[in-house]
Amino acid sequence: MIQWRNGAVITPDQTKLPLQEVTLEIKTVEQMAEAIKTLRVRGAPLLGAAAGFGVALAAYHSKAKTKEKLMAELETAGTIIKRQRPTAVNLFWGVDRVLKKARNSSESVEELKAAVIEEAQKIADEDAQQNRAIGKNGSVLIKDGDTILTHCNAGELATVEYGTALGIIRAAWEEGKKIKVIADETRPLLQGARLTAYELKRDGIPVTLITDNMAGYVMSKGLVNKVIVGADRVVQDAVFNKIGTYSVAVLAHEHNIPFYVAAPKSTFDLTRKAAEVEIEERNPQEVTHVGCQQTAPEGVKVMNPAFDATPLKYVSAIICESRIYYSRDFGAFRKGKV
Amino acid sequence: MIQWRNGAVITPDQTKLPLQEVTLEIKTVEQMAEAIKTLRVRGAPLLGAAAGFGVALAAYHSKAKTKEKLMAELETAGTIIKRQRPTAVNLFWGVDRVLKKARNSSESVEELKAAVIEEAQKIADEDAQQNRAIGKNGSVLIKDGDTILTHCNAGELATVEYGTALGIIRAAWEEGKKIKVIADETRPLLQGARLTAYELKRDGIPVTLITDNMAGYVMSKGLVNKVIVGADRVVQDAVFNKIGTYSVAVLAHEHNIPFYVAAPKSTFDLTRKAAEVEIEERNPQEVTHVGCQQTAPEGVKVMNPAFDATPLKYVSAIICESRIYYSRDFGAFRKGKV
Repeated sequence: MIQWRNGAVITPDQTKLPLQEVTLEIKTVEQMAEAIKTLRVRGAPLLGAAAGFGVALAAYHSKAKTKEKLMAELETAGTIIKRQRPTAVNLFWGVDRVLKKARNSSESVEELKAAVIEEAQKIADEDAQQNRAIGKNGSVLIKDGDTILTHCNAGELATVEYGTALGIIRAAWEEGKKIKVIADETRPLLQGARLTAYELKRDGIPVTLITDNMAGYVMSKGLVNKVIVGADRVVQDAVFNKIGTYSVAVLAHEHNIPFYVAAPKSTFDLTRKAAEVEIEERNPQEVTHVGCQQTAPEGVKVMNPAFDATPLKYVSAIICESRIYYSRDFGAFRKGKV
Repeated sequence: MIQWRNGAVITPDQTKLPLQEVTLEIKTVEQMAEAIKTLRVRGAPLLGAAAGFGVALAAYHSKAKTKEKLMAELETAGTIIKRQRPTAVNLFWGVDRVLKKARNSSESVEELKAAVIEEAQKIADEDAQQNRAIGKNGSVLIKDGDTILTHCNAGELATVEYGTALGIIRAAWEEGKKIKVIADETRPLLQGARLTAYELKRDGIPVTLITDNMAGYVMSKGLVNKVIVGADRVVQDAVFNKIGTYSVAVLAHEHNIPFYVAAPKSTFDLTRKAAEVEIEERNPQEVTHVGCQQTAPEGVKVMNPAFDATPLKYVSAIICESRIYYSRDFGAFRKGKV
């Protein structure tokens, strides 16, 4: 959920949901960087669009008189945006795509600005189309009566619209399949409780909220048929997604429950293996507190990795905008070519 | 941590830790029932002692002139205590043990009262001794340099003293083994963050706090050698413990990490199978809120089972006060005889 409006980026403040619906109006690269860092703007596909729009903000508000000066400002803007979070590849991809467009532009300053803004808008438009395509492709995997467990939020909020994992759920629901969703709350930042439960409840799709540690229990009771999650980066041998995804994948594997990953190709980074990807370590206070409420003893040592890597052996299929890759197709990922 | 003092039961209010150290002075069965229901008093072994002391409170403050009248009051007290929580067997065991003592007493009213109080104190004293024995028995499984993951709180707070799972950790530490602990925060009620982290930090045993969904991640990174948890009920085919224990057990199994259960024999209920045990479903607000802070949309559907069952196939050993039962010994559990 993101829009360009006359030199400003309009998007919900995802840290305030579900209790408050606050709309951000982001006008500078610095504001965009802060919003990305603090997860006001989050979700791999949304970060791709936000990254593009971040550079577009620099272009739109630039006072540069020469192309060289403008290009230098755009490069700086790109660097600022990229350093906010290390794991989701879409952030780098979005910045690089608009910068490449800018570098290849042989137009005037004003035309270059317009080209950058247009490219950023194109990223956003494509993401919306891709999510619809992911939804359509993935919904063939969903049967009437299925109960689907999801982790974190790969919904409308995490994307430009419709969602990836929740896009598949939405598409199946729109096709008339009577499905139910179980949402992991997703500590520490509770994107499942705050965002997934909010989106699905608002749209009338049946959702039940559980704490993360109930996933094994609901699977052991036969209450889950399928798992669908999003992805922050797909590499040759693994899928990076929100911390806890790996635990869910192992549990699904143990219970013979299909584990599906919904990811646009902008999330693919098949030049790398899992061991080469930096996992963002976030502020310990996210673990010792819930919101501003302290829950752990003062000064206790904490680990707070924001993501984990799920080896492809635990993944049943990856659904992207062009097709479904089943485990039999994963050899191509290992070779870096799909 | 519980004491009888002149007709009152003295114990910490575990819902207030770690931010406040509040001591409860419980003087009536109704106060004890409320403390058990709301988890001010929690932990299977502690519940055994609290149950005994609860009946002792009824005895101590009774104005009954006849043995029959007194016995009726004690039976009522036992019924009130037992109905507070359905899963931890020690609650039933503690009540039944003092009531049996009372029923078999042929003394005067005053002597009967004294016998009940004495039996309750005996339960508490035995628990303290048993935990030391569990610690000593279990510490042979722990090597210098081990990092041990634990879930929920099976420590001093959950018992009369020393702890079961944390008793083993304490014993290994006291023997000079340089060990570290990783504590799952244990949503929804955060006993790991609030109580385990508090106890271990206070005692100088190195502890790192994680959210529950990081357990798979830390195992995949080779950061955990062993898992030790407590138990609320051991049946013929499974161990009941805090929700999330089953997920940890499956993850440990997948990573070839030993999964140990520390449990006094008062926790054993070998007349039953897992399918026959009721799992307590608690208030949805525990999941939609953290403390008084709401984190999920208003009115969202929730599951909140307080416990899960871990089949014995995932358990490497059960450590009790008399010995260690390894998986090769579990046939005896299935026959209901150990």
